[in-house]
Amino acid sequence: MPSDFSITIIGSNSALAAQGRFPTAQYISFKSKHFLIDCGEGTQFRMNDFKVPKAHIEKIFISHLHGDHFYGLIGLLTSYSLSNRIKPIEIYTPKGLREIIELQSMYSDAHFTYEIIYKETQALSNEVLFEDESICISSFPLKHRIPTTGFLFQEKVTERKLIKEKINSFDLSVDEIIQLKNQQNVVRNDGTILSVEEFTHPITKARSYAYCSDTAYFEEIIPIIKNVDLLYHETTFDKNLVALAQKTNHSTTLEAARIASLAEVKQLMIGHFSSRYKHSEMLMDECKTIFDNTIIAIEGETFYID
Amino acid sequence: MPSDFSITIIGSNSALAAQGRFPTAQYISFKSKHFLIDCGEGTQFRMNDFKVPKAHIEKIFISHLHGDHFYGLIGLLTSYSLSNRIKPIEIYTPKGLREIIELQSMYSDAHFTYEIIYKETQALSNEVLFEDESICISSFPLKHRIPTTGFLFQEKVTERKLIKEKINSFDLSVDEIIQLKNQQNVVRNDGTILSVEEFTHPITKARSYAYCSDTAYFEEIIPIIKNVDLLYHETTFDKNLVALAQKTNHSTTLEAARIASLAEVKQLMIGHFSSRYKHSEMLMDECKTIFDNTIIAIEGETFYID
Repeated sequence: MPSDFSITIIGSNSALAAQGRFPTAQYISFKSKHFLIDCGEGTQFRMNDFKVPKAHIEKIFISHLHGDHFYGLIGLLTSYSLSNRIKPIEIYTPKGLREIIELQSMYSDAHFTYEIIYKETQALSNEVLFEDESICISSFPLKHRIPTTGFLFQEKVTERKLIKEKINSFDLSVDEIIQLKNQQNVVRNDGTILSVEEFTHPITKARSYAYCSDTAYFEEIIPIIKNVDLLYHETTFDKNLVALAQKTNHSTTLEAARIASLAEVKQLMIGHFSSRYKHSEMLMDECKTIFDNTIIAIEGETFYID
Repeated sequence: MPSDFSITIIGSNSALAAQGRFPTAQYISFKSKHFLIDCGEGTQFRMNDFKVPKAHIEKIFISHLHGDHFYGLIGLLTSYSLSNRIKPIEIYTPKGLREIIELQSMYSDAHFTYEIIYKETQALSNEVLFEDESICISSFPLKHRIPTTGFLFQEKVTERKLIKEKINSFDLSVDEIIQLKNQQNVVRNDGTILSVEEFTHPITKARSYAYCSDTAYFEEIIPIIKNVDLLYHETTFDKNLVALAQKTNHSTTLEAARIASLAEVKQLMIGHFSSRYKHSEMLMDECKTIFDNTIIAIEGETFYID
């Protein structure tokens, strides 16, 4: 069964739409929460094509203000109004986006039917953006030409949950339940031992996803993304275009793979491909020479984190 | 043979993309000139799909600053830079667009590789925007919620051109050539008459195209668009939604057809359909009850003006 933590790729190209690929956007579904990372031009149309439930999105994370990561946002926000959205939306974004959206709204004489809550990110240090009982979402600086952050989605380790059937069959008292939830075995007066393992579900290992685009090779992110289940890292260029990658503050395949390897992540997903590449398999193969568990961010596909 | 004056429909829906239709944009090709009218989100992608030679576009006309008519412009302009465009581009637009584009460029730290020449339209009276020896392009006020103009493309009646073969076979002098071009018959000393009809090509009738979107029913445009070969007039709503059309400053089918009829245009093309309509044939049929020569602006199709 697919897990309740997934990433759907809306766009995986860099800069221009080309080779059938589109600018960056990813839809994240985590339990009952729905997020969007970046929003290149046409994201709303492609979410329609891919049957992504875009009305459910409650938080949008914009990595930086290059057009291929945000030109589709004003259209999506406008469409929400046209469909009479009421639920507020939070946008985590570098400084500038609010001014851009509000200027366009002013000239259009448009009024949003819902509240937009802008939360400015800063690309200076790690920062927790949102946290509740099940997830922690934080940003961290990347190395690019303008202020840019990556995003880290970390599931929280939940407390052990009682196996419900045991409550009745063993006639558990409230005190016993609390003790078990706190991971202490119960010793009854008659000597019976009610063990934590027997009476509670195992703790689910916390899952994690890190998004790193756009960025040059930047080892400072390694401690932050250490051991994540899935790392999305841009590979704009193939291994031979190191100089161009350095000049434009992007990464090559081998650089991304090296980061994945040093951070000991479980899996690497590559994207943000230069329009010069008709196929991205060659880029994946280059990564695999350093980090074997590499996959391609294929548009329209959903990747589950188990 | 297709004529050298054509309109390619890039998008024909209103507001949202829906029913497989996209927001407004039209590509106009006139002899060796190439224009774009409006530029909804995704216009650049759809021009790729339809193999429209977008690099050739030299002038862009924006009717008004509602998102479905201009959200795709910043992406197109950015893509031109990414493909190292050098040729300047002129943008005829209401006040505001320059500020919007420049604000986004500032935060993206983007620099265009070519010059953008903004020419502000005003929606107060008719105005010639561009004129040369072959075409006159003008704007005129429409009736909408924010300042909005229609656009009129008028071919100029050209002077009669000499039939080249006659020059040699009759050994025409420079004076005789000038006289014939000025539409005067030549009478030679020996009494021979060189008639304008025999020595020059017939004058091509001037062709014309008028674009009216978005607008409420607005009879003041009639003298401006009188007798045009092709009138594009929005029909956002069917004949029963008169109240909604009035409220939103859009037109119904019957209103557009009435304008076409009163202006005695040759042909009416309808578009800017509300997302509620799965098919637009019904809207065309309604128009035909008043104005028979009505066609639908089908996306991806090119319409020639003969």
